[in-house]
Amino acid sequence: MSKYDVIVLGSGPGGYVTAIRASQLGLKTAVVEKESLGGVCLNWGCIPTKALLKSAQVFDYLKHASDYGLTVNEYDKDFTKVVERSRGVAEGMSNGVKFLMKKNKIDVIEGFGKLKAGKKIDVDGKEYSADHIVIATGARSRELPNLPQDGKKVIGYREAMTLKKQPKSMIVVGSGAIGVEFAHFYNAMGTEVTIVEYLPNLVPLEDLDVSKQFERSFKKAGIKVMTNSSVEKVDTSGKTVKATVKTKKGEEIIEADIVLSAVGIVTNIEGIGLEDVGIVTDKGKVMVNDFYQTNIPGYYAIGDITPGPALAHVASAEGITCVEKIAGMNVEAIDYGNIPGCTYATPEIASVGMTEQQAKDAGYDIKVGKFPFSASGKASAAGTKDGFVKVIFDAKYGEWLGCHMIGAGVTDMIAEAVLGRKLETTGHEVLKTIHPHPTMSEAVMEAVADAYDEVIHL
Amino acid sequence: MSKYDVIVLGSGPGGYVTAIRASQLGLKTAVVEKESLGGVCLNWGCIPTKALLKSAQVFDYLKHASDYGLTVNEYDKDFTKVVERSRGVAEGMSNGVKFLMKKNKIDVIEGFGKLKAGKKIDVDGKEYSADHIVIATGARSRELPNLPQDGKKVIGYREAMTLKKQPKSMIVVGSGAIGVEFAHFYNAMGTEVTIVEYLPNLVPLEDLDVSKQFERSFKKAGIKVMTNSSVEKVDTSGKTVKATVKTKKGEEIIEADIVLSAVGIVTNIEGIGLEDVGIVTDKGKVMVNDFYQTNIPGYYAIGDITPGPALAHVASAEGITCVEKIAGMNVEAIDYGNIPGCTYATPEIASVGMTEQQAKDAGYDIKVGKFPFSASGKASAAGTKDGFVKVIFDAKYGEWLGCHMIGAGVTDMIAEAVLGRKLETTGHEVLKTIHPHPTMSEAVMEAVADAYDEVIHL
Repeated sequence: MSKYDVIVLGSGPGGYVTAIRASQLGLKTAVVEKESLGGVCLNWGCIPTKALLKSAQVFDYLKHASDYGLTVNEYDKDFTKVVERSRGVAEGMSNGVKFLMKKNKIDVIEGFGKLKAGKKIDVDGKEYSADHIVIATGARSRELPNLPQDGKKVIGYREAMTLKKQPKSMIVVGSGAIGVEFAHFYNAMGTEVTIVEYLPNLVPLEDLDVSKQFERSFKKAGIKVMTNSSVEKVDTSGKTVKATVKTKKGEEIIEADIVLSAVGIVTNIEGIGLEDVGIVTDKGKVMVNDFYQTNIPGYYAIGDITPGPALAHVASAEGITCVEKIAGMNVEAIDYGNIPGCTYATPEIASVGMTEQQAKDAGYDIKVGKFPFSASGKASAAGTKDGFVKVIFDAKYGEWLGCHMIGAGVTDMIAEAVLGRKLETTGHEVLKTIHPHPTMSEAVMEAVADAYDEVIHL
Repeated sequence: MSKYDVIVLGSGPGGYVTAIRASQLGLKTAVVEKESLGGVCLNWGCIPTKALLKSAQVFDYLKHASDYGLTVNEYDKDFTKVVERSRGVAEGMSNGVKFLMKKNKIDVIEGFGKLKAGKKIDVDGKEYSADHIVIATGARSRELPNLPQDGKKVIGYREAMTLKKQPKSMIVVGSGAIGVEFAHFYNAMGTEVTIVEYLPNLVPLEDLDVSKQFERSFKKAGIKVMTNSSVEKVDTSGKTVKATVKTKKGEEIIEADIVLSAVGIVTNIEGIGLEDVGIVTDKGKVMVNDFYQTNIPGYYAIGDITPGPALAHVASAEGITCVEKIAGMNVEAIDYGNIPGCTYATPEIASVGMTEQQAKDAGYDIKVGKFPFSASGKASAAGTKDGFVKVIFDAKYGEWLGCHMIGAGVTDMIAEAVLGRKLETTGHEVLKTIHPHPTMSEAVMEAVADAYDEVIHL
């Protein structure tokens, strides 16, 4: 029986990063993977979708070339090639993880791992043991009872990124990041898209101003938006799918080639031996302390299967924190109030901290600032005037409570706010940080200035 | 005679921002402008060039559409329309400044302003007085004696952004931001471009690694790069221009339709009455203290005409600082060690703080980290794998001495480093700031990790 210091169950952005950090810290490490190295994120999530969205962006440029003084007479997309490119990018990344495993001398154990008592893992009949077992099995697409996925006409995100043929029409159910990214992609490619959201607003976890702006952009792009609506049932018996959508005005039947169910995720906690070991779960999540220890010594859990937000960068950070603690380092617990979230549709959305409503509900007296990209010189020059940066400060002590961005490139701009908040900046310090001109990032400085009635370009 | 609290001479990004902030602080303010509101930056610099560069970017997408699974059979640029778009953007921004002047109740005095003793300004024969006069007359293209500009065959940046006809070939002299941005633009548009730089490297003020990477990218894009070279003379007598270029290997004659001189700037200090008032200048710059007071009470100077870096965002910050001090606020002097600089060619360059060489020369014991975008998932998905983020820390106290980025979108990413440095962050704090996945901004975190031997994805 092979013995390790650390075995990580699952090789997603939680698992493989945990393994690399463990190895860096001198721990003999193995990772168990049942499918492809890199997990959902690299193979079926973050990365391949961004590749699809890039093709959509370039396709949009082809459509609007005349806006930039250019002429395009004949152009088209080759849907198969767009998907192939995406798969190629995913494969490249997965090979990259394979290389990193090798370079860091991490054993990759292929197969389905099942936890055993006594800090052991059974992988398809072979047993491995470790001083520390980190569970990082992640999550999968959630299925609603009234929206069963057949993988053909009613699909999840995996099928959505590998369709052989572009559908003429599509109903996307759910408007979280996954839903709106696919809605944008397919709409840009020329599919007729309807998006159905149960809550009153698209991207319902974002600040209300962001949701509203996003909805305007989606409608302008030609996407049919149905909020306060839910799919009651689907009829897949015919050539198309007939979805019965309950709206505030009554029921409506919508027909489309394909229904994409993007109504969240469920954790992969079944069949991996949690019960055998006696590890406590609650509402589908593995219960852990600040350093990701479960109730059973020697067993840890990180990533989507734990209660924090189910995001790749959170999983990675949790894994690093977990294994640094195991290695005896002086580790600080993750501040879950300072996790950025990004959505990569057009416009992009990026946010960190509290929404305006959350800040008010928490009892803060707040100062709010907002700067629209329509007033930004760089945005004018680049033709990306949609969107804004919104900032929320505590009026009393100047704490930066939240930052919400919508517009071109904002997913690369939110890091400033995350770092600023980590360093406990005040608004005044951001304001006096010279942002280069002309950039979209000036909007952060200007939004803060707006909160303090010092905005220049409004 | 009209009397003001503040008169600003010049309405560039230094002047108009000064005027707005003065007005916000309750000061009766006027701005004097001889040409177009917004100065060079809005009308002939930052903004219109970014518009041209955006057209170049979209044109590049047309050329490389097949990389993204798209097909384009017939496409072209309409050079006149590309230029028209740029002029339209500039005009829109200048109108925006006009609106801001009106909204902030700032009087705009059109004409050529000349300083008078006794805190007065003469504008084309009419006199105005103020308690505080802020000089913000900016700079213009520098002319070399052996490269006299005729505005036709040997041109400066103004002509370069409004050519009626696209030249078939162009020699760009100088590889600072202006030179390389035009070199990139014209090359992307299909002009045969040669760039001549006197110093050993392109963008010679940047970190050496950045310069080298940039030169590789330029050569790959088909630009002929001549470093360690200088234009000795030009012969404009024929149909084309014949430039005699002195290289390390001897003299070479290069022929092109047009030569663009981009060899820096000279300040606009002539004829504005500095001598009449007795304001001290040195090497073409107006001497000021930390709060932009000249040697004559009541006269201030900001922006390109003062010794700091000649950048729009510096001018704006100086103007705000100057006028806040005038208004009696408790003002901190600008830290000139923390000014970001950006170049918007492809790839983009953004940097702040010391280069590796400068840090070594300053006697620091340093830790250097570097993360290439070729290892970034987002860059792979977006097809923007060229470039890297490089960070330099003081080994002893962990001070972030410098950050140097080259690649897609980095001009919007540098703000994180500027804010971090302002807040006196350590590397560890950046490392423990959760950057969203997948973004280009992760490269900052990873570069810092590399400096501390904790990098994950290398």
